Amino acid sequence: MISASTNLYAVIGDPVAHSLSPVMQNWFIEQFHLNAVYTAFRVKGAKLQMCINGMRAMGIKGLNVTVPHKEAIRSFVDEQSEEVRVLGAANTLKNQAGVISAYVTDPYGFIESLGENRARFRGASVLLYGAGGAAKSVSYALSRLGVDQLLISDLVSQKAIELAERAQKLYGLKNASALVKGFAPMKEIIKHTHIVINATAVGMFPLEDKSVVDNYDVVGTKHFFYDLVYNPAQTKFLRLAEERGAATQNGLDMLIYQGLESLRIWTGQDLSLLPSQLNELKKLMRNQLGVHE
Amino acid sequence: MISASTNLYAVIGDPVAHSLSPVMQNWFIEQFHLNAVYTAFRVKGAKLQMCINGMRAMGIKGLNVTVPHKEAIRSFVDEQSEEVRVLGAANTLKNQAGVISAYVTDPYGFIESLGENRARFRGASVLLYGAGGAAKSVSYALSRLGVDQLLISDLVSQKAIELAERAQKLYGLKNASALVKGFAPMKEIIKHTHIVINATAVGMFPLEDKSVVDNYDVVGTKHFFYDLVYNPAQTKFLRLAEERGAATQNGLDMLIYQGLESLRIWTGQDLSLLPSQLNELKKLMRNQLGVHE
Repeated sequence: MISASTNLYAVIGDPVAHSLSPVMQNWFIEQFHLNAVYTAFRVKGAKLQMCINGMRAMGIKGLNVTVPHKEAIRSFVDEQSEEVRVLGAANTLKNQAGVISAYVTDPYGFIESLGENRARFRGASVLLYGAGGAAKSVSYALSRLGVDQLLISDLVSQKAIELAERAQKLYGLKNASALVKGFAPMKEIIKHTHIVINATAVGMFPLEDKSVVDNYDVVGTKHFFYDLVYNPAQTKFLRLAEERGAATQNGLDMLIYQGLESLRIWTGQDLSLLPSQLNELKKLMRNQLGVHE
Repeated sequence: MISASTNLYAVIGDPVAHSLSPVMQNWFIEQFHLNAVYTAFRVKGAKLQMCINGMRAMGIKGLNVTVPHKEAIRSFVDEQSEEVRVLGAANTLKNQAGVISAYVTDPYGFIESLGENRARFRGASVLLYGAGGAAKSVSYALSRLGVDQLLISDLVSQKAIELAERAQKLYGLKNASALVKGFAPMKEIIKHTHIVINATAVGMFPLEDKSVVDNYDVVGTKHFFYDLVYNPAQTKFLRLAEERGAATQNGLDMLIYQGLESLRIWTGQDLSLLPSQLNELKKLMRNQLGVHE
């Protein structure tokens, strides 16, 4: 039961009305018997300073930060984790006696989401579609997973080149490069790739009938396709790969584990999910999304 | 279920850890099927401005304000109700698109708590113990209830005199006066009084074995004793009056109705409790308090 000693956590963003975080985090809170509640606040960019001061004044213990504030929020915090400094973005704020520390849990969420597929990454060649914020977090995680080669493709070549440079210089991924159109036949590239990741919005509404990969001829059982999109649950990107025998995974587990990591940071507790709990939560979240399975 | 569209309400005070408002308001929220949740924030006096700006930045729709901020909060709001201006205190803030309006629901809570005892007040003589914030709200309510005479007693005579003057000038209670020691034998005063109200902390821990009234000889069935204290449920003040046949009431209903009025202000909805609901809520709150019945 909520009482005067119940802690408040919340996500801030603009817009924020469709965030799944409140449903997910309140489910965690219930499962782990925490004395807390989690809501959402729509906060304008011009009011971030007021929001952080309000967090201090009200003693709000933790906030998640989502688009479009993940980069800008850094100016208003007192401390940044190593990952926040390297990635230039934060999604988790912790308030300790008025001192606000910023963390980013997305790379952690990607890694924990992999489960038994994690072993595929060491020494692997990875093709990554997208060069935005999500792709940055994934690239950072890939360096921690010990991949050998990273090839980044983006509609805007310059963005892919910049991320490849960041991955080399900041994330320690020496063999990171940008895939420039006409660089090599796509078939040849996929043939020599173990893992293909979609970190773009292609496959989501209104692009449900699109895939970043346009030729699946050489896709086979040795491949692992990972889509950060989780609505629909199976994008065209994943469906066609699965039809060719590839292992596949969507982005729902990453969403769950980046959220769980935030809650670990706020509570200082080692919270973990049983497989049955993970499945129950995924079912709840798919229901919230109205996802067709 | 709490989602990204769920509204947050909260009480601010210092300390606030023992506030019953979260338990009570979340019970209302559930009963009335509102999409909201209610928590508590401990806010230092020096941070009220930051808190109100945070309320604006985060779009928090409503706050309750409790001691010690009920007077000071007025400096930070955009609009004050007539009652707030007259009483010099506020307990409810409503945020409409960043414009913060202040209300005070305590007088309303007192009046609604009376139920069928309300008819006793028109033309009555009332003896009021206490001259602090609660006594102010009660005095204001008494003027609205059409009492004829108000006699105010306080350990600090000067406070009683000041409240009597306020009641005359600001609340429109022409026959308000302060009871100065030795003014008349207490027996005589109570004999000519219909209603005796305790708005002091006498009767609460650690003063459970005390009563502001020291002689009950002339107390009888025509009297109505009202104690703003609700923990213990029956103070010595009420018990001795009941033993003499007087009607009695404690402060739990006032606490409930001042809170319900805040929720009406925030939601704009005409919320009301069935007698069975009121009883269920009182039981819940007594359990929270660990009150002996």
